[in-house]
Amino acid sequence: MIEKSLADAVAFPGIPETTLIRAMRYTLLLPGKRLRPLLTLLACEACGGSVDDALPAACAVEMVHAFSLIHDDLPCMDDDDLRRGKATNHVVFGEAQALLAGDALLSFAFEVLSHDAGSKPAPQVQKNLSPEIALVCTRELAMATMSMIEGQSLDMEGFGGHPSPEQIEGMERQKTGALIVASLRMGGIVTGASEEQLAALSEYGWRLGLAFQILDDLLDVEGSEKETGKRVGKDVEKGKRTSPSIFGVEQSRKRIEQLIAQACDSMKPFEKCAGALISLAESMREKRR
Amino acid sequence: MIEKSLADAVAFPGIPETTLIRAMRYTLLLPGKRLRPLLTLLACEACGGSVDDALPAACAVEMVHAFSLIHDDLPCMDDDDLRRGKATNHVVFGEAQALLAGDALLSFAFEVLSHDAGSKPAPQVQKNLSPEIALVCTRELAMATMSMIEGQSLDMEGFGGHPSPEQIEGMERQKTGALIVASLRMGGIVTGASEEQLAALSEYGWRLGLAFQILDDLLDVEGSEKETGKRVGKDVEKGKRTSPSIFGVEQSRKRIEQLIAQACDSMKPFEKCAGALISLAESMREKRR
Repeated sequence: MIEKSLADAVAFPGIPETTLIRAMRYTLLLPGKRLRPLLTLLACEACGGSVDDALPAACAVEMVHAFSLIHDDLPCMDDDDLRRGKATNHVVFGEAQALLAGDALLSFAFEVLSHDAGSKPAPQVQKNLSPEIALVCTRELAMATMSMIEGQSLDMEGFGGHPSPEQIEGMERQKTGALIVASLRMGGIVTGASEEQLAALSEYGWRLGLAFQILDDLLDVEGSEKETGKRVGKDVEKGKRTSPSIFGVEQSRKRIEQLIAQACDSMKPFEKCAGALISLAESMREKRR
Repeated sequence: MIEKSLADAVAFPGIPETTLIRAMRYTLLLPGKRLRPLLTLLACEACGGSVDDALPAACAVEMVHAFSLIHDDLPCMDDDDLRRGKATNHVVFGEAQALLAGDALLSFAFEVLSHDAGSKPAPQVQKNLSPEIALVCTRELAMATMSMIEGQSLDMEGFGGHPSPEQIEGMERQKTGALIVASLRMGGIVTGASEEQLAALSEYGWRLGLAFQILDDLLDVEGSEKETGKRVGKDVEKGKRTSPSIFGVEQSRKRIEQLIAQACDSMKPFEKCAGALISLAESMREKRR
Protein backbone atom coordinates (compact mmCIF):
# COMPACT_ATOMS: atom_id res chain seq x y z
CA MET A 1 0.00 0.00 0.00
CA ILE A 2 2.82 2.40 0.91
CA GLU A 3 4.86 1.47 -2.17
CA LYS A 4 1.88 2.04 -4.44
CA SER A 5 1.03 5.40 -2.88
CA LEU A 6 4.62 6.60 -3.14
CA ALA A 7 4.87 5.51 -6.77
CA ASP A 8 1.54 7.19 -7.56
CA ALA A 9 2.61 10.39 -5.81
CA VAL A 10 5.65 10.83 -8.07
CA ALA A 11 4.09 9.45 -11.27
CA PHE A 12 3.05 12.97 -12.43
CA PRO A 13 0.97 11.71 -15.38
CA GLY A 14 0.82 14.16 -18.28
CA ILE A 15 3.87 16.11 -17.10
CA PRO A 16 7.07 15.83 -19.19
CA GLU A 17 9.69 13.60 -17.59
CA THR A 18 12.55 15.76 -16.32
CA THR A 19 15.87 14.98 -14.67
CA LEU A 20 14.50 16.45 -11.45
CA ILE A 21 11.53 14.08 -11.44
CA ARG A 22 13.74 11.09 -12.25
CA ALA A 23 16.13 12.03 -9.46
CA MET A 24 13.27 12.47 -6.95
CA ARG A 25 11.82 9.11 -7.94
CA TYR A 26 15.18 7.35 -7.84
CA THR A 27 15.78 7.71 -4.11
CA LEU A 28 12.15 7.79 -3.00
CA LEU A 29 11.34 4.50 -4.71
CA LEU A 30 14.51 2.57 -3.84
CA PRO A 31 13.51 -0.48 -1.81
CA GLY A 32 13.65 0.63 1.83
CA LYS A 33 12.26 -0.48 5.15
CA ARG A 34 9.52 2.19 4.94
CA LEU A 35 9.71 2.34 8.72
CA ARG A 36 8.31 5.87 9.03
CA PRO A 37 5.24 5.53 6.77
CA LEU A 38 4.57 2.14 8.35
CA LEU A 39 4.58 3.78 11.78
CA THR A 40 2.09 6.36 10.49
CA LEU A 41 -0.31 3.69 9.25
CA LEU A 42 0.07 1.50 12.35
CA ALA A 43 -0.44 4.47 14.70
CA CYS A 44 -3.58 5.37 12.78
CA GLU A 45 -4.81 1.79 13.13
CA ALA A 46 -3.93 1.71 16.84
CA CYS A 47 -6.12 4.80 17.33
CA GLY A 48 -9.00 3.09 15.55
CA GLY A 49 -8.68 4.98 12.28
CA SER A 50 -8.76 3.87 8.67
CA VAL A 51 -5.27 3.62 7.20
CA ASP A 52 -6.49 5.23 3.97
CA ASP A 53 -6.74 8.55 5.80
CA ALA A 54 -3.12 8.25 6.92
CA LEU A 55 -1.64 7.66 3.45
CA PRO A 56 -0.90 11.31 2.54
CA ALA A 57 0.92 11.80 5.85
CA ALA A 58 2.70 8.46 5.41
CA CYS A 59 3.90 9.47 1.93
CA ALA A 60 4.90 12.94 3.12
CA VAL A 61 7.04 11.58 5.94
CA GLU A 62 8.83 9.15 3.62
CA MET A 63 9.51 12.05 1.23
CA VAL A 64 11.10 14.04 4.06
CA HIS A 65 13.15 10.96 4.96
CA ALA A 66 14.28 10.53 1.33
CA PHE A 67 15.19 14.24 1.18
CA SER A 68 17.38 13.78 4.26
CA LEU A 69 19.08 10.69 2.80
CA ILE A 70 19.96 12.50 -0.43
CA HIS A 71 21.36 15.55 1.34
CA ASP A 72 23.18 13.52 4.02
CA ASP A 73 24.95 11.48 1.33
CA LEU A 74 26.26 14.54 -0.55
CA PRO A 75 30.05 15.02 -0.73
CA CYS A 76 29.93 18.07 1.56
CA MET A 77 28.05 16.01 4.18
CA ASP A 78 28.73 12.29 4.81
CA ASP A 79 30.04 11.72 1.25
CA ASP A 80 28.47 8.28 0.77
CA ASP A 81 28.30 6.46 -2.55
CA LEU A 82 26.08 3.57 -1.49
CA ARG A 83 22.53 3.70 -0.07
CA ARG A 84 19.89 1.01 0.06
CA GLY A 85 22.35 -1.15 -1.88
CA LYS A 86 22.51 1.26 -4.83
CA ALA A 87 24.61 4.21 -5.95
CA THR A 88 23.60 7.37 -4.08
CA ASN A 89 21.60 10.06 -5.84
CA HIS A 90 24.52 12.40 -6.58
CA VAL A 91 26.59 9.54 -8.01
CA VAL A 92 23.82 8.92 -10.54
CA PHE A 93 22.53 12.45 -11.22
CA GLY A 94 25.41 14.71 -10.18
CA GLU A 95 25.59 16.94 -7.13
CA ALA A 96 23.47 19.81 -8.42
CA GLN A 97 20.54 17.64 -9.44
CA ALA A 98 20.77 15.57 -6.25
CA LEU A 99 20.69 18.72 -4.14
CA LEU A 100 17.63 19.92 -6.06
CA ALA A 101 15.94 16.50 -5.88
CA GLY A 102 16.26 16.63 -2.08
CA ASP A 103 14.86 20.16 -2.01
CA ALA A 104 12.01 19.07 -4.28
CA LEU A 105 11.10 16.06 -2.11
CA LEU A 106 10.99 18.28 0.99
CA SER A 107 8.82 20.83 -0.72
CA PHE A 108 6.61 18.16 -2.32
CA ALA A 109 5.97 16.57 1.09
CA PHE A 110 4.17 19.76 2.11
CA GLU A 111 2.30 19.86 -1.18
CA VAL A 112 1.06 16.32 -0.56
CA LEU A 113 -0.13 17.24 2.94
CA SER A 114 -1.97 20.32 1.68
CA HIS A 115 -3.29 18.50 -1.40
CA ASP A 116 -6.95 19.35 -1.51
CA ALA A 117 -6.57 22.99 -0.64
CA GLY A 118 -7.15 25.19 -3.66
CA SER A 119 -8.24 24.27 -7.12
CA LYS A 120 -5.19 22.93 -8.93
CA PRO A 121 -4.89 19.24 -9.82
CA ALA A 122 -4.00 17.27 -6.75
CA PRO A 123 -1.27 14.69 -6.32
CA GLN A 124 -2.37 11.09 -6.73
CA VAL A 125 -2.35 10.36 -3.03
CA GLN A 126 -5.10 12.87 -2.39
CA LYS A 127 -7.45 11.94 0.41
CA ASN A 128 -9.97 14.09 2.14
CA LEU A 129 -8.45 15.32 5.33
CA SER A 130 -10.07 18.32 6.97
CA PRO A 131 -8.06 21.55 6.67
CA GLU A 132 -7.54 21.58 10.45
CA ILE A 133 -6.06 18.09 10.45
CA ALA A 134 -3.96 18.69 7.36
CA LEU A 135 -2.59 21.86 8.92
CA VAL A 136 -1.72 20.20 12.24
CA CYS A 137 0.09 17.48 10.25
CA THR A 138 1.94 20.18 8.28
CA ARG A 139 3.08 21.73 11.51
CA GLU A 140 4.14 18.39 13.05
CA LEU A 141 6.13 17.53 9.94
CA ALA A 142 7.73 20.96 9.61
CA MET A 143 8.81 21.02 13.26
CA ALA A 144 10.19 17.48 13.12
CA THR A 145 12.08 18.34 9.94
CA MET A 146 13.63 21.35 11.66
CA SER A 147 14.69 19.11 14.57
CA MET A 148 16.18 16.59 12.20
CA ILE A 149 18.16 19.28 10.38
CA GLU A 150 19.33 20.77 13.69
CA GLY A 151 20.47 17.29 14.79
CA GLN A 152 22.35 16.80 11.53
CA SER A 153 23.97 20.21 11.93
CA LEU A 154 25.18 19.37 15.47
CA ASP A 155 26.42 15.98 14.24
CA MET A 156 28.43 17.61 11.42
CA GLU A 157 29.97 20.06 13.86
CA GLY A 158 30.95 17.31 16.27
CA PHE A 159 30.19 19.49 19.33
CA GLY A 160 33.72 20.91 19.19
CA GLY A 161 35.32 17.53 19.86
CA HIS A 162 34.22 15.97 23.16
CA PRO A 163 30.50 15.53 23.44
CA SER A 164 29.05 13.97 26.56
CA PRO A 165 26.87 10.84 26.22
CA GLU A 166 23.89 13.08 27.03
CA GLN A 167 24.79 15.47 24.23
CA ILE A 168 25.08 12.57 21.80
CA GLU A 169 21.76 11.12 22.88
CA GLY A 170 20.16 14.57 22.59
CA MET A 171 21.54 14.99 19.09
CA GLU A 172 20.31 11.53 18.09
CA ARG A 173 16.85 12.31 19.42
CA GLN A 174 16.76 15.32 17.11
CA LYS A 175 18.35 13.58 14.16
CA THR A 176 16.32 10.37 14.16
CA GLY A 177 13.76 10.53 16.94
CA ALA A 178 11.84 13.65 15.98
CA LEU A 179 10.76 12.41 12.54
CA ILE A 180 9.84 8.97 13.92
CA VAL A 181 7.72 10.62 16.61
CA ALA A 182 6.07 12.85 13.99
CA SER A 183 5.35 9.79 11.81
CA LEU A 184 3.45 8.21 14.68
CA ARG A 185 1.70 11.37 15.82
CA MET A 186 0.47 12.18 12.31
CA GLY A 187 -1.06 8.70 12.13
CA GLY A 188 -2.93 9.53 15.32
CA ILE A 189 -3.82 13.09 14.33
CA VAL A 190 -5.53 12.09 11.07
CA THR A 191 -7.93 9.94 13.04
CA GLY A 192 -8.60 12.50 15.77
CA ALA A 193 -6.57 10.79 18.51
CA SER A 194 -6.76 12.19 22.04
CA GLU A 195 -3.88 14.08 23.68
CA GLU A 196 -3.25 10.99 25.84
CA GLN A 197 -3.02 8.75 22.80
CA LEU A 198 -0.66 11.19 21.08
CA ALA A 199 1.52 11.37 24.20
CA ALA A 200 1.73 7.56 24.31
CA LEU A 201 2.66 7.46 20.61
CA SER A 202 5.35 10.09 21.23
CA GLU A 203 6.85 8.08 24.09
CA TYR A 204 6.89 4.93 22.00
CA GLY A 205 8.50 6.92 19.18
CA TRP A 206 11.29 8.46 21.24
CA ARG A 207 12.23 5.03 22.59
CA LEU A 208 11.96 3.23 19.26
CA GLY A 209 13.87 6.02 17.53
CA LEU A 210 16.75 5.86 19.96
CA ALA A 211 16.85 2.04 19.80
CA PHE A 212 16.85 2.33 16.04
CA GLN A 213 19.73 4.83 16.05
CA ILE A 214 21.87 2.70 18.39
CA LEU A 215 21.13 -0.34 16.21
CA ASP A 216 22.21 1.65 13.17
CA ASP A 217 25.46 2.60 14.92
CA LEU A 218 26.00 -1.05 15.93
CA LEU A 219 25.49 -2.21 12.35
CA ASP A 220 28.13 0.29 11.26
CA VAL A 221 30.51 -1.56 13.60
CA GLU A 222 29.30 -5.14 13.16
CA GLY A 223 27.25 -5.24 9.96
CA SER A 224 28.17 -5.87 6.35
CA GLU A 225 27.47 -3.76 3.29
CA LYS A 226 25.19 -6.51 2.01
CA GLU A 227 23.09 -6.41 5.17
CA THR A 228 22.85 -2.64 5.49
CA GLY A 229 22.94 -1.57 1.83
CA LYS A 230 25.44 1.14 2.72
CA ARG A 231 29.12 1.46 3.54
CA VAL A 232 30.05 0.27 7.04
CA GLY A 233 32.87 1.22 9.39
CA LYS A 234 32.55 4.89 8.50
CA ASP A 235 31.88 6.10 12.04
CA VAL A 236 35.06 4.49 13.41
CA GLU A 237 37.03 5.75 10.42
CA LYS A 238 35.88 9.31 11.13
CA GLY A 239 36.39 8.95 14.88
CA LYS A 240 32.71 9.74 15.40
CA ARG A 241 31.48 9.24 18.96
CA THR A 242 28.49 6.91 18.85
CA SER A 243 26.82 4.73 21.44
CA PRO A 244 28.98 1.63 20.71
CA SER A 245 32.18 3.69 20.78
CA ILE A 246 31.30 5.21 24.17
CA PHE A 247 29.53 2.36 25.95
CA GLY A 248 30.85 -0.64 24.01
CA VAL A 249 28.91 -3.19 21.98
CA GLU A 250 27.51 -5.21 24.89
CA GLN A 251 26.18 -2.18 26.76
CA SER A 252 24.66 -0.80 23.58
CA ARG A 253 22.83 -4.08 22.99
CA LYS A 254 21.46 -3.97 26.52
CA ARG A 255 20.31 -0.40 25.97
CA ILE A 256 18.45 -1.46 22.82
CA GLU A 257 16.72 -4.27 24.77
CA GLN A 258 15.70 -1.83 27.46
CA LEU A 259 14.41 0.75 24.98
CA ILE A 260 12.37 -1.89 23.11
CA ALA A 261 10.79 -3.03 26.37
CA GLN A 262 10.01 0.59 27.30
CA ALA A 263 8.56 1.29 23.85
CA CYS A 264 6.23 -1.71 24.17
CA ASP A 265 5.31 -0.51 27.62
CA SER A 266 4.24 2.87 26.23
CA MET A 267 1.60 1.10 24.17
CA LYS A 268 -0.38 -0.09 27.23
CA PRO A 269 -3.11 2.57 26.87
CA PHE A 270 -4.03 1.09 23.47
CA GLU A 271 -4.59 -2.40 24.92
CA LYS A 272 -4.97 -4.86 22.05
CA CYS A 273 -5.02 -2.29 19.23
CA ALA A 274 -1.27 -1.70 19.29
CA GLY A 275 -0.29 -5.31 18.55
CA ALA A 276 1.40 -4.36 15.28
CA LEU A 277 3.40 -1.52 16.85
CA ILE A 278 4.55 -3.86 19.62
CA SER A 279 5.54 -6.55 17.10
CA LEU A 280 7.41 -3.97 15.08
CA ALA A 281 9.42 -2.85 18.12
CA GLU A 282 10.12 -6.46 19.10
CA SER A 283 11.25 -7.35 15.59
CA MET A 284 14.24 -5.04 16.15
CA ARG A 285 15.63 -7.62 18.57
CA GLU A 286 16.27 -10.03 15.73
CA LYS A 287 18.30 -7.44 13.86
CA ARG A 288 20.58 -6.87 16.80
CA ARG A 289 23.49 -8.80 15.37
CA MET B 1 7.47 45.86 9.19
CA ILE B 2 8.88 43.03 7.07
CA GLU B 3 12.38 43.40 8.55
CA LYS B 4 11.01 43.26 12.07
CA SER B 5 8.83 40.23 11.39
CA LEU B 6 11.71 38.36 9.78
CA ALA B 7 14.04 39.16 12.65
CA ASP B 8 11.39 38.11 15.18
CA ALA B 9 10.73 34.87 13.32
CA VAL B 10 14.35 33.72 13.65
CA ALA B 11 15.02 35.21 17.10
CA PHE B 12 14.10 31.90 18.84
CA PRO B 13 14.21 33.36 22.34
CA GLY B 14 15.15 30.84 25.01
CA ILE B 15 16.65 28.41 22.52
CA PRO B 16 20.45 27.93 22.58
CA GLU B 17 22.21 29.70 19.72
CA THR B 18 23.47 27.12 17.25
CA THR B 19 25.49 27.33 14.06
CA LEU B 20 22.38 26.33 12.14
CA ILE B 21 20.37 29.22 13.57
CA ARG B 22 23.21 31.68 12.93
CA ALA B 23 23.52 30.45 9.35
CA MET B 24 19.74 30.71 8.76
CA ARG B 25 19.70 34.22 10.17
CA TYR B 26 22.79 35.32 8.22
CA THR B 27 21.22 35.06 4.76
CA LEU B 28 17.62 35.74 5.74
CA LEU B 29 18.50 39.02 7.42
CA LEU B 30 21.02 40.37 4.90
CA PRO B 31 19.70 43.65 3.55
CA GLY B 32 17.69 42.75 0.46
CA LYS B 33 14.98 44.26 -1.67
CA ARG B 34 12.32 42.16 0.11
CA LEU B 35 10.44 42.19 -3.19
CA ARG B 36 8.45 39.02 -2.52
CA PRO B 37 7.18 39.82 0.98
CA LEU B 38 6.44 43.37 -0.17
CA LEU B 39 4.30 41.95 -2.98
CA THR B 40 2.44 39.82 -0.44
CA LEU B 41 1.64 42.83 1.74
CA LEU B 42 0.72 45.07 -1.22
CA ALA B 43 -1.51 42.39 -2.77
CA CYS B 44 -3.26 42.00 0.57
CA GLU B 45 -3.79 45.76 0.72
CA ALA B 46 -5.01 45.88 -2.89
CA CYS B 47 -7.66 43.30 -1.98
CA GLY B 48 -8.77 45.44 0.96
CA GLY B 49 -7.14 43.34 3.67
CA SER B 50 -5.09 44.24 6.70
CA VAL B 51 -1.38 43.74 6.09
CA ASP B 52 -0.98 42.21 9.55
CA ASP B 53 -2.79 39.12 8.32
CA ALA B 54 -0.34 38.77 5.45
CA LEU B 55 2.84 38.89 7.57
CA PRO B 56 3.23 35.12 8.15
CA ALA B 57 2.89 34.46 4.41
CA ALA B 58 5.25 37.37 3.66
CA CYS B 59 7.88 35.95 6.02
CA ALA B 60 7.41 32.43 4.69
CA VAL B 61 7.94 33.51 1.09
CA GLU B 62 11.13 35.41 1.98
CA MET B 63 12.40 32.30 3.80
CA VAL B 64 11.82 30.21 0.68
CA HIS B 65 13.63 32.88 -1.33
CA ALA B 66 16.56 32.89 1.12
CA PHE B 67 16.68 29.07 0.97
CA SER B 68 16.96 29.27 -2.83
CA LEU B 69 19.72 31.89 -2.67
CA ILE B 70 21.81 29.78 -0.29
CA HIS B 71 21.46 26.61 -2.37
CA ASP B 72 21.92 28.38 -5.72
CA ASP B 73 25.19 29.90 -4.50
CA LEU B 74 26.70 26.55 -3.43
CA PRO B 75 29.83 25.34 -5.25
CA CYS B 76 27.93 22.50 -6.97
CA MET B 77 25.40 25.02 -8.30
CA ASP B 78 26.34 28.57 -9.40
CA ASP B 79 29.40 28.68 -7.12
CA ASP B 80 29.01 32.32 -6.07
CA ASP B 81 30.97 33.95 -3.27
CA LEU B 82 29.14 37.28 -3.14
CA ARG B 83 25.44 37.91 -2.47
CA ARG B 84 23.71 41.07 -1.34
CA GLY B 85 27.21 42.57 -1.12
CA LYS B 86 28.42 40.02 1.43
CA ALA B 87 30.17 36.67 1.43
CA THR B 88 27.74 33.88 0.57
CA ASN B 89 26.50 31.53 3.27
CA HIS B 90 28.85 28.64 2.48
CA VAL B 91 31.86 30.96 2.43
CA VAL B 92 31.03 31.96 6.01
CA PHE B 93 29.64 28.72 7.47
CA GLY B 94 31.04 26.01 5.19
CA GLU B 95 29.15 23.96 2.62
CA ALA B 96 27.55 21.49 5.01
CA GLN B 97 26.07 24.12 7.32
CA ALA B 98 24.97 26.27 4.37
CA LEU B 99 23.18 23.31 2.79
CA LEU B 100 21.45 22.64 6.12
CA ALA B 101 20.59 26.32 6.66
CA GLY B 102 18.84 26.34 3.28
CA ASP B 103 16.96 23.15 4.17
CA ALA B 104 16.01 24.64 7.53
CA LEU B 105 14.69 27.88 6.01
CA LEU B 106 12.54 25.91 3.57
CA SER B 107 11.17 23.73 6.31
CA PHE B 108 10.69 26.67 8.68
CA ALA B 109 8.67 28.55 6.05
CA PHE B 110 6.03 25.82 6.31
CA GLU B 111 6.20 25.91 10.09
CA VAL B 112 5.53 29.65 10.02
CA LEU B 113 2.51 29.16 7.75
CA SER B 114 1.07 26.43 9.94
CA HIS B 115 1.95 28.29 13.16
CA ASP B 116 -1.19 28.14 15.22
CA ALA B 117 -2.01 24.53 14.51
CA GLY B 118 -1.24 22.32 17.49
CA SER B 119 -0.12 23.25 20.94
CA LYS B 120 3.62 23.91 20.78
CA PRO B 121 5.02 27.43 21.14
CA ALA B 122 4.50 29.33 17.93
CA PRO B 123 7.00 31.42 16.01
CA GLN B 124 6.93 35.13 16.75
CA VAL B 125 5.13 36.04 13.56
CA GLN B 126 2.05 34.12 14.62
CA LYS B 127 -1.20 35.63 13.47
CA ASN B 128 -4.60 34.09 13.47
CA LEU B 129 -5.26 32.79 10.01
CA SER B 130 -8.05 30.26 9.65
CA PRO B 131 -6.83 26.69 9.03
CA GLU B 132 -8.41 26.75 5.55
CA ILE B 133 -6.53 29.89 4.57
CA ALA B 134 -3.26 28.74 6.11
CA LEU B 135 -3.56 25.44 4.24
CA VAL B 136 -4.28 27.08 0.88
CA CYS B 137 -1.21 29.30 1.46
CA THR B 138 0.84 26.19 2.29
CA ARG B 139 -0.23 24.63 -0.97
CA GLU B 140 0.47 27.77 -3.01
CA LEU B 141 3.92 28.07 -1.48
CA ALA B 142 4.76 24.37 -1.85
CA MET B 143 3.70 24.32 -5.51
CA ALA B 144 5.60 27.51 -6.32
CA THR B 145 8.70 26.13 -4.59
CA MET B 146 8.48 22.98 -6.69
CA SER B 147 8.24 25.14 -9.84
CA MET B 148 11.22 27.19 -8.77
CA ILE B 149 13.31 24.08 -8.13
CA GLU B 150 12.23 22.57 -11.46
CA GLY B 151 13.27 25.81 -13.19
CA GLN B 152 16.64 25.76 -11.47
CA SER B 153 17.11 22.12 -12.48
CA LEU B 154 16.39 22.93 -16.15
CA ASP B 155 18.72 25.92 -15.96
CA MET B 156 21.56 23.79 -14.55
CA GLU B 157 21.06 21.21 -17.29
CA GLY B 158 21.13 23.87 -20.00
CA PHE B 159 18.46 22.04 -22.06
CA GLY B 160 21.17 19.96 -23.74
CA GLY B 161 22.80 23.00 -25.33
CA HIS B 162 20.44 24.90 -27.63
CA PRO B 163 17.29 26.09 -25.92
CA SER B 164 14.74 28.08 -27.89
CA PRO B 165 13.71 31.54 -26.63
CA GLU B 166 10.39 29.95 -25.60
CA GLN B 167 12.18 27.28 -23.57
CA ILE B 168 14.26 29.94 -21.84
CA GLU B 169 11.21 32.06 -21.07
CA GLY B 170 9.39 28.96 -19.79
CA MET B 171 12.32 28.11 -17.53
CA GLU B 172 12.49 31.68 -16.22
CA ARG B 173 8.77 31.64 -15.48
CA GLN B 174 9.35 28.58 -13.31
CA LYS B 175 12.57 29.82 -11.76
CA THR B 176 11.48 33.34 -10.84
CA GLY B 177 7.86 33.83 -11.85
CA ALA B 178 6.21 31.09 -9.83
CA LEU B 179 7.37 32.34 -6.42
CA ILE B 180 6.53 35.96 -7.29
CA VAL B 181 3.04 34.89 -8.36
CA ALA B 182 2.63 32.88 -5.15
CA SER B 183 3.78 35.90 -3.09
CA LEU B 184 0.99 37.97 -4.59
CA ARG B 185 -1.66 35.27 -4.46
CA MET B 186 -0.97 34.52 -0.80
CA GLY B 187 -1.49 38.21 -0.02
CA GLY B 188 -4.88 37.94 -1.69
CA ILE B 189 -5.75 34.58 -0.18
CA VAL B 190 -5.26 35.70 3.43
CA THR B 191 -7.88 38.38 2.90
CA GLY B 192 -10.36 36.14 1.09
CA ALA B 193 -9.81 37.59 -2.39
CA SER B 194 -12.12 36.44 -5.22
CA GLU B 195 -10.96 34.13 -8.01
CA GLU B 196 -10.98 37.15 -10.35
CA GLN B 197 -8.76 39.15 -8.04
CA LEU B 198 -6.36 36.20 -7.68
CA ALA B 199 -6.26 35.78 -11.46
CA ALA B 200 -5.40 39.47 -11.89
CA LEU B 201 -2.65 39.20 -9.25
CA SER B 202 -1.26 36.14 -11.05
CA GLU B 203 -1.16 37.96 -14.37
CA TYR B 204 0.60 40.93 -12.80
CA GLY B 205 3.03 38.52 -11.15
CA TRP B 206 3.96 36.58 -14.29
CA ARG B 207 4.68 39.83 -16.11
CA LEU B 208 6.56 41.46 -13.26
CA GLY B 209 8.53 38.27 -12.65
CA LEU B 210 9.66 38.02 -16.25
CA ALA B 211 10.56 41.73 -16.39
CA PHE B 212 12.50 41.24 -13.17
CA GLN B 213 14.38 38.24 -14.57
CA ILE B 214 15.31 40.04 -17.78
CA LEU B 215 16.45 43.04 -15.73
CA ASP B 216 18.57 40.71 -13.62
CA ASP B 217 20.15 39.26 -16.76
CA LEU B 218 20.75 42.79 -18.11
CA LEU B 219 22.44 43.82 -14.87
CA ASP B 220 24.73 40.79 -15.20
CA VAL B 221 25.81 42.28 -18.55
CA GLU B 222 25.73 45.99 -17.73
CA GLY B 223 25.73 46.33 -13.96
CA SER B 224 28.51 46.56 -11.41
CA GLU B 225 29.17 44.46 -8.34
CA LYS B 226 28.48 47.53 -6.21
CA GLU B 227 25.05 48.00 -7.76
CA THR B 228 23.97 44.37 -7.70
CA GLY B 229 25.78 43.12 -4.59
CA LYS B 230 26.87 40.02 -6.51
CA ARG B 231 29.41 39.03 -9.13
CA VAL B 232 28.55 40.22 -12.64
CA GLY B 233 29.45 38.88 -16.09
CA LYS B 234 28.96 35.29 -14.95
CA ASP B 235 26.29 34.41 -17.53
CA VAL B 236 28.50 35.46 -20.45
CA GLU B 237 31.48 33.69 -18.90
CA LYS B 238 29.47 30.47 -18.70
CA GLY B 239 27.97 30.93 -22.16
CA LYS B 240 24.51 30.89 -20.60
CA ARG B 241 21.71 31.80 -22.99
CA THR B 242 19.74 34.65 -21.43
CA SER B 243 17.41 37.25 -22.86
CA PRO B 244 20.18 39.84 -23.58
CA SER B 245 22.38 37.20 -25.23
CA ILE B 246 19.55 36.08 -27.54
CA PHE B 247 17.71 39.30 -28.28
CA GLY B 248 20.40 41.88 -27.52
CA VAL B 249 20.36 44.62 -24.90
CA GLU B 250 18.04 47.03 -26.75
CA GLN B 251 15.37 44.42 -27.46
CA SER B 252 15.55 43.20 -23.88
CA ARG B 253 14.96 46.72 -22.61
CA LYS B 254 11.94 47.07 -24.85
CA ARG B 255 10.62 43.77 -23.58
CA ILE B 256 10.94 45.00 -19.99
CA GLU B 257 9.01 48.20 -20.90
CA GLN B 258 6.28 46.13 -22.50
CA LEU B 259 6.04 43.74 -19.54
CA ILE B 260 5.85 46.61 -17.04
CA ALA B 261 3.02 48.20 -19.04
CA GLN B 262 1.19 44.87 -19.19
CA ALA B 263 1.70 44.27 -15.47
CA CYS B 264 0.17 47.67 -14.68
CA ASP B 265 -2.66 46.86 -17.06
CA SER B 266 -3.44 43.67 -15.11
CA MET B 267 -4.21 45.82 -12.07
CA LYS B 268 -7.24 47.54 -13.67
CA PRO B 269 -9.82 45.44 -11.79
CA PHE B 270 -8.49 46.87 -8.51
CA GLU B 271 -9.03 50.47 -9.65
CA LYS B 272 -7.38 52.79 -7.14
CA CYS B 273 -6.42 50.14 -4.58
CA ALA B 274 -3.47 48.83 -6.57
CA GLY B 275 -1.55 52.13 -6.67
CA ALA B 276 1.38 50.72 -4.73
CA LEU B 277 1.66 47.63 -6.95
CA ILE B 278 1.60 49.86 -10.05
CA SER B 279 4.27 52.17 -8.59
CA LEU B 280 6.39 49.17 -7.73
CA ALA B 281 6.24 47.85 -11.30
CA GLU B 282 6.98 51.31 -12.70
CA SER B 283 9.94 51.78 -10.38
CA MET B 284 11.66 48.98 -12.30
CA ARG B 285 12.02 51.35 -15.24
CA GLU B 286 14.53 53.44 -13.28
CA LYS B 287 16.67 50.40 -12.64
CA ARG B 288 16.90 49.57 -16.28
CA ARG B 289 20.45 50.79 -16.71
